Amino acid sequence: MYDIICVGAGPAGLTAAIYASRESLSVLVLERMVAGGQAVMTEFIENYPGFAKGVSGYDLTDAMRAQAERFGAEIRLADVVGYDIDGDVKRLTLSNGDVVESKAVILTQGATHKHLGVPGEDKFSGRGVSYCAVCDGAFFKDKEIVVVGGGNSAVQDALYLAKYGSHVTIVHRRNELRAQKVIAQRAFDNPKVSICWDSVVKEIKGANAVEGVVLENVKTGEKSDMKADGVFIFIGLNPGGEGVDVKKDDYGYIVTDEEMATSVPGVFAAGDIRQKSLRQVITACADGAVAADAAGRYIAMK
Amino acid sequence: MYDIICVGAGPAGLTAAIYASRESLSVLVLERMVAGGQAVMTEFIENYPGFAKGVSGYDLTDAMRAQAERFGAEIRLADVVGYDIDGDVKRLTLSNGDVVESKAVILTQGATHKHLGVPGEDKFSGRGVSYCAVCDGAFFKDKEIVVVGGGNSAVQDALYLAKYGSHVTIVHRRNELRAQKVIAQRAFDNPKVSICWDSVVKEIKGANAVEGVVLENVKTGEKSDMKADGVFIFIGLNPGGEGVDVKKDDYGYIVTDEEMATSVPGVFAAGDIRQKSLRQVITACADGAVAADAAGRYIAMK
Repeated sequence: MYDIICVGAGPAGLTAAIYASRESLSVLVLERMVAGGQAVMTEFIENYPGFAKGVSGYDLTDAMRAQAERFGAEIRLADVVGYDIDGDVKRLTLSNGDVVESKAVILTQGATHKHLGVPGEDKFSGRGVSYCAVCDGAFFKDKEIVVVGGGNSAVQDALYLAKYGSHVTIVHRRNELRAQKVIAQRAFDNPKVSICWDSVVKEIKGANAVEGVVLENVKTGEKSDMKADGVFIFIGLNPGGEGVDVKKDDYGYIVTDEEMATSVPGVFAAGDIRQKSLRQVITACADGAVAADAAGRYIAMK
Repeated sequence: MYDIICVGAGPAGLTAAIYASRESLSVLVLERMVAGGQAVMTEFIENYPGFAKGVSGYDLTDAMRAQAERFGAEIRLADVVGYDIDGDVKRLTLSNGDVVESKAVILTQGATHKHLGVPGEDKFSGRGVSYCAVCDGAFFKDKEIVVVGGGNSAVQDALYLAKYGSHVTIVHRRNELRAQKVIAQRAFDNPKVSICWDSVVKEIKGANAVEGVVLENVKTGEKSDMKADGVFIFIGLNPGGEGVDVKKDDYGYIVTDEEMATSVPGVFAAGDIRQKSLRQVITACADGAVAADAAGRYIAMK
């Protein structure tokens, strides 16, 4: 019986583990893939405070892992397939059939960006292909940028990227944007932003870096090449936490209060998995610290 | 005319500057004392995620300062004496008479722990004298701990510290605790916690490390020595932001929404200065990132 189980070993889960295990609570962190979460795949993080010259996602999260283990947290590679979390004792079933128990659970499974699934996307991911304007926009000063998507976040991020790039082209599969009118109008009014309607990206091309995209007009079937130094893909996020019965918003993000408490007593959520405005490593870490602190007080009051 | 002025160059202000200046916004950070804020005084921070073996407060915040300056933020030593922040143009008056202007303001003046003002307190601050249980409790495993105070946070933190220390003595100037009954009862019930009533700490003694405190009974005037390896002082916090006319709570902390917006449009608050549950470097940094992002969107919408 652990005090706390964190589901997910990204920055939120590892920080929760650092805080909780340093508080002498017993902590198990379950991770499906690899400790570090999505951040592991990020070659270079410039805006995590405390690394003046930047740090690789691997180095940063590996340090967090070592820090959590140093305070006594146990990290186990395992996939959670069943959640029995309504009672005082939380029981999680793993894919190998094992059941692990705890007094509190912190959900930190993150959210994954939807991919286009086209040739070149994975090859250049983190090196020209990005899913986060705030993270990577600054790497594309005076460069040609292609943005894929037509919703609010796609158009807002295109406007954001126009501050850096020489030009931003929004590639959208329909002939109108899904974004709110006021946001769409700002895109229409921005001389650095243009929109390529009725089109999809079929391929991302380049030798060592992204050099362009192959577009297909969905109405005519015509293909064309477009020059691009960076491709930002904003076609949605899939929050983790499937099969977890806590209150979620319309997009599937877990709803918490400011102390990261979910709708179920003793169950907390931290990081990208929860409803929030800014998904960054630093905000995930802070969520994890707050969740660990709140979970510790929850356990103490029991 | 700057895009954003941050008032205070602690972790919250510096992170806001990192995020905002990396977003190509012009940023001025005003600091009264020394860049880094209170964290500068912290000899060793174990729980800031990403530093597996810990980091000194000076090194951590100096890296944040360099990071903010690398993206173009300007840091100026200056004391703000006047706030004219209700209009679209925010005007701050500095103690030398200068007036600086911006489109948005982020308040990050932090909060300072009230001090006892007794001999030995400053000498051992950060080396046996602490104002933060979550930060420093882990350094006092199996040690004798004295806690000064009798309110909720003092008693809760005493219970927290009892998980580490061999024993915790709460020194309180009255003959009853101000803490809520349920919390006080947990202190009475904990065999590792005792309470020294009607007493104040007159001196913190030691050669190279804290060795004990001199107590005075406020009723009898009698003085006595008590052995102690660590002294935690929880007699309240003074939030910064005096003279700033935004909504505050009963304790003087600035009230914000989850995006760090205060009651005044274009004015945001981040870090220890705002009403929140956990005051840590990591949560201050996340606040700063969120505030910068929100301020950037506020400016873009203008």
